[in-house]
Amino acid sequence: MREFDLEHVYESQQFDSELLDRVFDVADEMKTDLFAKQRRYSQVLKGKIMASLFYEPSTRTRFSFESAMARLGGSTLTTENAKEFSSASKGETLYDSTRVMCEYADLIVMRHNEPGSAKLAAEASSIPIINAGDGSGQHPTQALLDLYTIKDCLSTIDGLSIAMVGDLKYGRTVRSLSYLLTKYSNITIYFVSPSVCKMDDDLKNYLTENNVQWKDESVLEEVLPLVDCVYMTRIQRERFHDLKDYEKAAGKYIIDEEQVKLMKEESIIMHPLPRVDEISQAVDNDPRAQYFQQARNGLFIRMALLFLLLQKP
Amino acid sequence: MREFDLEHVYESQQFDSELLDRVFDVADEMKTDLFAKQRRYSQVLKGKIMASLFYEPSTRTRFSFESAMARLGGSTLTTENAKEFSSASKGETLYDSTRVMCEYADLIVMRHNEPGSAKLAAEASSIPIINAGDGSGQHPTQALLDLYTIKDCLSTIDGLSIAMVGDLKYGRTVRSLSYLLTKYSNITIYFVSPSVCKMDDDLKNYLTENNVQWKDESVLEEVLPLVDCVYMTRIQRERFHDLKDYEKAAGKYIIDEEQVKLMKEESIIMHPLPRVDEISQAVDNDPRAQYFQQARNGLFIRMALLFLLLQKP
Amino acid sequence: MREFDLEHVYESQQFDSELLDRVFDVADEMKTDLFAKQRRYSQVLKGKIMASLFYEPSTRTRFSFESAMARLGGSTLTTENAKEFSSASKGETLYDSTRVMCEYADLIVMRHNEPGSAKLAAEASSIPIINAGDGSGQHPTQALLDLYTIKDCLSTIDGLSIAMVGDLKYGRTVRSLSYLLTKYSNITIYFVSPSVCKMDDDLKNYLTENNVQWKDESVLEEVLPLVDCVYMTRIQRERFHDLKDYEKAAGKYIIDEEQVKLMKEESIIMHPLPRVDEISQAVDNDPRAQYFQQARNGLFIRMALLFLLLQKP
Repeated sequence: MREFDLEHVYESQQFDSELLDRVFDVADEMKTDLFAKQRRYSQVLKGKIMASLFYEPSTRTRFSFESAMARLGGSTLTTENAKEFSSASKGETLYDSTRVMCEYADLIVMRHNEPGSAKLAAEASSIPIINAGDGSGQHPTQALLDLYTIKDCLSTIDGLSIAMVGDLKYGRTVRSLSYLLTKYSNITIYFVSPSVCKMDDDLKNYLTENNVQWKDESVLEEVLPLVDCVYMTRIQRERFHDLKDYEKAAGKYIIDEEQVKLMKEESIIMHPLPRVDEISQAVDNDPRAQYFQQARNGLFIRMALLFLLLQKP
Repeated sequence: MREFDLEHVYESQQFDSELLDRVFDVADEMKTDLFAKQRRYSQVLKGKIMASLFYEPSTRTRFSFESAMARLGGSTLTTENAKEFSSASKGETLYDSTRVMCEYADLIVMRHNEPGSAKLAAEASSIPIINAGDGSGQHPTQALLDLYTIKDCLSTIDGLSIAMVGDLKYGRTVRSLSYLLTKYSNITIYFVSPSVCKMDDDLKNYLTENNVQWKDESVLEEVLPLVDCVYMTRIQRERFHDLKDYEKAAGKYIIDEEQVKLMKEESIIMHPLPRVDEISQAVDNDPRAQYFQQARNGLFIRMALLFLLLQKP
Repeated sequence: MREFDLEHVYESQQFDSELLDRVFDVADEMKTDLFAKQRRYSQVLKGKIMASLFYEPSTRTRFSFESAMARLGGSTLTTENAKEFSSASKGETLYDSTRVMCEYADLIVMRHNEPGSAKLAAEASSIPIINAGDGSGQHPTQALLDLYTIKDCLSTIDGLSIAMVGDLKYGRTVRSLSYLLTKYSNITIYFVSPSVCKMDDDLKNYLTENNVQWKDESVLEEVLPLVDCVYMTRIQRERFHDLKDYEKAAGKYIIDEEQVKLMKEESIIMHPLPRVDEISQAVDNDPRAQYFQQARNGLFIRMALLFLLLQKP
C-alpha cells in the first residue's frame, strides 16, 4: 500500500480508491483502539497543536475535530467565530492569516464561508490544512465519513443503489458524496427532491462521464424499495431567498415508521444531521437508522486524517 | 459508605445527606491534594473528554468546570454560546444534539436557558450530564458548593440559622440551597427581601413539610445578629420586566462595615457572585467574608463530581 | 544574572536592559528547543493553567499565547469575548472578576479595552497577570517581540536607526517599542506619518530626555536608505472618527518592490500585522521581509514569559 501522499485535504477529488482505502483502514484501527480501550493511539499526537479556525460557527464539526485531536493526545487552539473576531475584519487577506497561523500550530482545520478558500489557504500554508467546509463549496471530511459509513454497514460500495433525498441544490454533502462514488463501479443514484432544489446538471454530467447511473425521481415511496441506502438531507431554510420556495420544499419527503417498512431489510438510512423533521424520531431505534453511528464515524475519519497528515516521517 | 450511584447531576433533589457527605469528602480530598501539591489526582482523568455545552454564556461557571477538568488531567471541548452557533439554531432538538455529543465526549456540562433541559438531555444521553444551570430552573453544583462552604466554615450544618437576602423570587441559588437544607435538622431560614421579589410559597410550603423553620423578614439589621450565615444575592436587573420594580428592589439591602459589626463573631457572609453593590468592598478583608473562598470551593466540588461520575468501575 | 523578579507584565516600562536580556536569552532557548525538537521544555508547565481573558477579541494574540502554553505542556481556559459574555455585563468590577479568576487558574492573560486595566487587575491578583493589550494603553509582549526580532536579525540594538511608519498617533506598538529603545544607546528614530496621525509630543519629549534622537519625516523614500529597520504599521480605520481623515492617511506610505530597492542590503522590514496594503505581497520573499518571523518570535517571547512567571522557585 502506498504512503499517504496528501499534504492537505481540501476537496473530495483529491482521493482515489486506493487513498480512500488507506483512510478507511486507519479509521478502522482508530475505532478498534477506542472501543477496545487499547490506547495504542491515545498519545500519538502528544505535543502537536491543531488550530480550529472557524470563520463561521459550526459547533458540531468543530467538536468532532477537536475530539479527534484530544483522543490522539494533541492540543487545540480554537475560535468559534473567526470572521467576526479576527484580523479578517481589519482587511487582512486569507494568505496572511494562514501564514501567521502556521507559526502557532502544526495543522489547521478551516471552516470558511467562501468556496475555494481552503485550497487558497493550502497554497499559502507550510502546515497541513483540512477543509471543514467552505461555503457552498466542499466539505470533504463529511463525504469521507459518509462513504466510510456505507462501507462499514454494507461491507462493499461497488454495485450499490443509493437514494439522495431533499435539498440537492444547496446541500453540499450530497454533491461531495456523489463525486466520491465515481471511484467505485456499478453505482446507481436516485435523486429525489422538490422541483425547487434539484441536483444541478454539472454534477449529473460528471456522473454520466464517470459511469455512474443516475435518475431523477419525485416520489420517495417508489424509490425506497429499490435502494441499499437512503441519504436524507435537511431543506436548509437559510439558503432560500424566497420563503415560499422553502415552504414548498420543506416537509415533502419524510421517513417515518410507515416509510421504513418499504425499505429492504439490509438497507440503511443516513443523514448528515442536524435533522428537523425529515426522519421521525420513532425511526431512531430501527436497525436501519445509522445517522448517529454516522456522526460517530466522523470521529474515526478525522482521527485517521489527523494521524496521517501529522505522523509523516 | 455506599458507592456514588448517580449517573447524572441535574437537580439538587437527587442528593440525600449520605450522597452529600460522599461528594464533600471527595471535595476535601481534592482540596488537600491541590494545596499540598500531592498530585495524586492530577492525571486521574487523563484521556477523558468533557464537553462544555453552554447555550447561554457564563464564563465563570464554564471556567470553574474546565479548571476542574484540567486539574484532573482531562481535556475539554468548549463552546461559549451554543445557542447562537449550533445546530439548535437550525431547528435541531435537544435530544439529537445530545445524542451526537455523546459520540465526541465522555461527559457533558450543559448550561441552558430552558428549565428542565438538563434532565431532558440526561434522558437522551449515554454519558453523564451535569446541569450547569437551566434558566430559572436548577443550578445544582452551585447549591452543592454553597452547602460545602457552610460546612467547611462552620463545621456542621445541623442547627444553623441562615439569612437569605435580596432577590429570592428570581434567584435560583437560594431556592436550590433551601432544598438541600431540608436534608439537615433544626435549620432556621430568614427570608429578607424587597416585597417585589419575595420567596415563592411553593418553596416555603416544602420547607414547612420538611421541618425547616422559616420567617419572612424585611429589616436586615434585625436579622444579622441572629444568624450563623448571611447569604447575599444580587438583584438581577435582567429578570425584571418593569424597571421601576428593579429600582425599588436594588440597593435596599447592603452589607458594609457597619452592618458587619451587628453579626456574630463566628458567622459567615456568602454571595454566589457576581456582586454589584450588595456587599461593600471594605468588607472583603473581614474574616467573615467567605465569598471568594466560596468561588474556590466550586472548583473542589466540580472536581469531586467529575471524578465520581467518570471514575466508575 | 539576576533572577526574573517581575510578578506581572503590564507595561514596557517594567523592563530594563538586564531584564530584557534575560527574557531574550530564554526566548532563544525556547526557539532552539522547538527547532531542534529537543523537547526539554515541552512538559515544563504540565499541570499549570493559563486563563485567556479577552474582553475584546484578538484571535491572533490569543492563539500566540495559547500556543506558547501548549508548547510548554500547560492547559488553557479561554474566552473570545469576555466583555459580552461575562459577569462584567452584570456590573461586576474588574477587581472581583480577577479575584475569582485567581481561584481557577495559575496565570491570567488579559486583553481589555480600558487603558490601565491590566495594572488594576495585577493589584487585585494573587497570580501573575500578563497584559495582552489594554485599549489605547500598552501591549508589552508585542514590544518585547518587536525588540527581540530586531536583535535577532541585526545582532545588536545599540547604534541602530529605525523608521516608524504609518499610524503613529493611534498605533500602540510604535509607542511601546519606542519606550523600550530608550534602554539602548545611540538610537535614532525617524517618525514617518501623515499629518493627521503624527506621534504625540509626550513620547518625543520622553525620547529626548532619554537620549534617543528622533526626527519627523514625511517622505518615506528619503528615509529608507538611511535606516537599519523599517517598522510599518496599518492605518487603523476603526480609530478614526472622521472617514475623510482616514482616507487621507491610508495608502500614503506603501512598500513595494521599488521601495525595497532603496533600502540597505542588511536592513529589515517589520510589521506587527495585520497588514492591509502597506507592504506589497511581492515583497514577502525579499530576505529583508521579517514580519512573519516577527509573528513567530511572538511565540518564543510568550513561551519565555510564561516560563519565567510560572517557574519561580
